[in-house]
Amino acid sequence: MDSPKTLKMSWEEFHALPVEEKGKCFFHRGKLYHTIFAQQFDREQLEGLSELATRIRQIAKSRAGMDFLQGLLSHKRAMLYFQQPSTRTFLSFYAACQILGLKAAEVRNTQTSSEVKGETPEDSVRTFSSFFDVIIMRHPEAGFAEKIAWLLSNTERPVPVINAGSGKDQHPTQALLDVYTLIRSFEERDGIDGKTIVFCGDLKRGRTVRSLALLLTNFNDVRMYFVAPEELQIEADITEALERKGVKYDKVYSLSEVVAEADAIYMTRLQDEWDVAGESRKLDLGKYNFLPEYLQRMKPTSVIMHPLPRRNEIPVEVDKDPRAVYWRQVRNGMWVRVALLATTFRLDELIFQHYEYHNR
Amino acid sequence: MDSPKTLKMSWEEFHALPVEEKGKCFFHRGKLYHTIFAQQFDREQLEGLSELATRIRQIAKSRAGMDFLQGLLSHKRAMLYFQQPSTRTFLSFYAACQILGLKAAEVRNTQTSSEVKGETPEDSVRTFSSFFDVIIMRHPEAGFAEKIAWLLSNTERPVPVINAGSGKDQHPTQALLDVYTLIRSFEERDGIDGKTIVFCGDLKRGRTVRSLALLLTNFNDVRMYFVAPEELQIEADITEALERKGVKYDKVYSLSEVVAEADAIYMTRLQDEWDVAGESRKLDLGKYNFLPEYLQRMKPTSVIMHPLPRRNEIPVEVDKDPRAVYWRQVRNGMWVRVALLATTFRLDELIFQHYEYHNR
Amino acid sequence: MDSPKTLKMSWEEFHALPVEEKGKCFFHRGKLYHTIFAQQFDREQLEGLSELATRIRQIAKSRAGMDFLQGLLSHKRAMLYFQQPSTRTFLSFYAACQILGLKAAEVRNTQTSSEVKGETPEDSVRTFSSFFDVIIMRHPEAGFAEKIAWLLSNTERPVPVINAGSGKDQHPTQALLDVYTLIRSFEERDGIDGKTIVFCGDLKRGRTVRSLALLLTNFNDVRMYFVAPEELQIEADITEALERKGVKYDKVYSLSEVVAEADAIYMTRLQDEWDVAGESRKLDLGKYNFLPEYLQRMKPTSVIMHPLPRRNEIPVEVDKDPRAVYWRQVRNGMWVRVALLATTFRLDELIFQHYEYHNR
Repeated sequence: MDSPKTLKMSWEEFHALPVEEKGKCFFHRGKLYHTIFAQQFDREQLEGLSELATRIRQIAKSRAGMDFLQGLLSHKRAMLYFQQPSTRTFLSFYAACQILGLKAAEVRNTQTSSEVKGETPEDSVRTFSSFFDVIIMRHPEAGFAEKIAWLLSNTERPVPVINAGSGKDQHPTQALLDVYTLIRSFEERDGIDGKTIVFCGDLKRGRTVRSLALLLTNFNDVRMYFVAPEELQIEADITEALERKGVKYDKVYSLSEVVAEADAIYMTRLQDEWDVAGESRKLDLGKYNFLPEYLQRMKPTSVIMHPLPRRNEIPVEVDKDPRAVYWRQVRNGMWVRVALLATTFRLDELIFQHYEYHNR
Repeated sequence: MDSPKTLKMSWEEFHALPVEEKGKCFFHRGKLYHTIFAQQFDREQLEGLSELATRIRQIAKSRAGMDFLQGLLSHKRAMLYFQQPSTRTFLSFYAACQILGLKAAEVRNTQTSSEVKGETPEDSVRTFSSFFDVIIMRHPEAGFAEKIAWLLSNTERPVPVINAGSGKDQHPTQALLDVYTLIRSFEERDGIDGKTIVFCGDLKRGRTVRSLALLLTNFNDVRMYFVAPEELQIEADITEALERKGVKYDKVYSLSEVVAEADAIYMTRLQDEWDVAGESRKLDLGKYNFLPEYLQRMKPTSVIMHPLPRRNEIPVEVDKDPRAVYWRQVRNGMWVRVALLATTFRLDELIFQHYEYHNR
Repeated sequence: MDSPKTLKMSWEEFHALPVEEKGKCFFHRGKLYHTIFAQQFDREQLEGLSELATRIRQIAKSRAGMDFLQGLLSHKRAMLYFQQPSTRTFLSFYAACQILGLKAAEVRNTQTSSEVKGETPEDSVRTFSSFFDVIIMRHPEAGFAEKIAWLLSNTERPVPVINAGSGKDQHPTQALLDVYTLIRSFEERDGIDGKTIVFCGDLKRGRTVRSLALLLTNFNDVRMYFVAPEELQIEADITEALERKGVKYDKVYSLSEVVAEADAIYMTRLQDEWDVAGESRKLDLGKYNFLPEYLQRMKPTSVIMHPLPRRNEIPVEVDKDPRAVYWRQVRNGMWVRVALLATTFRLDELIFQHYEYHNR
């Protein structure tokens, strides 16, 4: 598999490109190669990935289907390079690899080894990547996945890089699974266009909300409510981007106000691990929790989402309501990652054909 | 695979059931679903698992047999969730999964991740379980495996739970492998019925002895000797259970006394990790070690067992005696776990048929 | 697979054997069984492994070839027992296992578990090995791999042991990959015979250089230069071994002097982790770094090697020169380990035949 020619420039040159230009560099001859940030995907690509995820899920229901899927990448090897703890994302990718027969190896906390001996992080990843056909990586440093994508594209043996979270900002596969969950939830209601999406909780520091809000600008007439105390409200960079695209949004200061209007309520937890001095613990968040009584006021077709882990913002008793889709969202994460891996290895067409032939 | 309907009650209701009633809840339509504690198995089930383990061992001897076994669960994925260190049990299960082609992923010490973010242990396990078809779990908290079995049985996507050790009390697969080792050892001597089993060492705190003694009440006329200093003797809950079943037993204060009479000597190490203030280190344990000279006095058909790890209670020079079966016991652990997994996925009949057709 | 009969002696007896005699013990009926130290291989074996590695690399280029390779050991299980951190070697072996379909399980840092309970390291490894068909091990204690090879050869269920690094001295697969890289580099130049090899850097404490220098005595008329400050020069045990074999060598005190003459320049980093009091940090190593300007003075057919990790002894800009083969060397490490595993399981002939039939 050739890597994108467009990455054959110096790191400084590449790094200075505007986001839209960079995004294009991660594709090769119109096909996805590196997955680095959410905004590199347009509507067509998002819908394509979602459709593929659904087809794969259906194929996987039979033993014969699982055998087909597991044969697709049984000759390939993936490295899961996780320099930040993340059991959830890790296992989701790991299971996704297993579904495609892609043999996985993991690298965690390499500080103990070569980096102690004075190796640069770039040399370490290049070494580890030498044995594998795709790198799925999570790293505390913002922009590191991008750097590795550039680096590996410029070696004799390029391999695709999938960003499983880097720094505070980018976690593209979480955004993909959120979009996929919305698409599935509105499957029989004309899709995401025209829907009202409520985001509630810590909107300032939750990267999932930030990415998802941006991705939803790919759809038509989506209305957004941002429900959070002033201290945790969505930041100007996002609202400005929404304004540029003509998206209607409002900041709201109580979840109760918008519960009845919502087509989807996207709950998030307080990200107090980013607190400087425990400031957010002083906030009264009562108005930003999902109360069981809201279930009566919500539309029967509406859904409640949450990227998990949760604290007390959704009580466990809500789980039983069929509109609570956050556990399904977890599974969707696995399926969309299968779809992403399959697309990276250009198996999307083959899978669609298999489905047409066997499942229809 | 449906999960047991009988678990569809509240946690409080379930938790309050007597052990015998709970045990039945782990089966579904007469078939094993969850494996939570040793006492859930009756004699027929113990003998069935043992026979299956032996058949699998025989099938695995040929390449064609291994190919058959590895195809059985190649479309399924297992999560090994080990919140307590246990390389021995972990590897034994891991190898058992590999033998059946069951793709395994491991989760260890998740404190570092989501639980730090305030997630409940129940939510964590439910998340992790979302990607897998069976959960094999070890946890420091007594009763946690039971809780998870109940929890997952009450979700949209139930999966079986196998307890690989929880708290101080339950480690059912160790008990299964001990019974299997006894069955194999007495294969040509009419089985376990009527045999004399000597338990020696730290009988107070060794959960293997406690479980095994209870399981052996499923067999007829088993005579037991408990050899330990008073401070480490078998506790009343066990002896009362034996008395209720009419099992003959004696407490003995020197291994030497009963060596000649034993059909099996089950040695255990001092479990001083449970000491409060190093109290057990003061005990003189000389009379509770297996001395090489005992080999002369033992019956030629008797066996020496040990759950391992050992310290000095059996010297290495004893290993060469054919009656020292503790290394074989380790391998038996793997085979019985293969049998347990196969049974959990209802492959037992298929394996017996394969054996009948190909190996007889 | 029988294990070598020659190991059936006491540990004291075995341990006291001269290196040449020990080396022979690791073979069984002329076939490789244990891989413990570099010197156990003669020229024919080194060339055989190298040829096999190249054939495997070629077979692996097609999907059909990968399917063939992955079927070879799909019925076997490997344990990677790494008691010392080493992501590089670990992943290389892990990928090698995956290429052959050999199912791998890893054990790292078992101090947390059984050894805490008082188990001897020998009992631990024997337990772990019970579930697997080959042990690939790295251990901080010199001679431990050798001890385990002896131990397992003397049990009822012997399995081969591959030393992935033990103590300061032995790391045989690194030596094999270095020889393989040299053989490949000189493929069209009559091989290693008659070549001039320059070793540069910390030659006193780098076990790779020590092992490689010894292995190269298997070839004819190799000339060696050892380029290092006096404090880090190659030690007398190596130079005496070279003298016994009649190998011409010189100690040199500036890399610049020998750059033009070299057929291969083997760079190494300062191993200051072995410093007693930071003594090597005071050394002026400027004359022992590879300067970009040397590229002009090097022969067009010469190669630059490095076992990695590197620090500043080779600047990143050198990587683009086609004579810089250290990244290829990393990949060679994987292929030669595939070849070694295949040979250990006696699949070498089958692979050669497959190649003859399908690829020629």
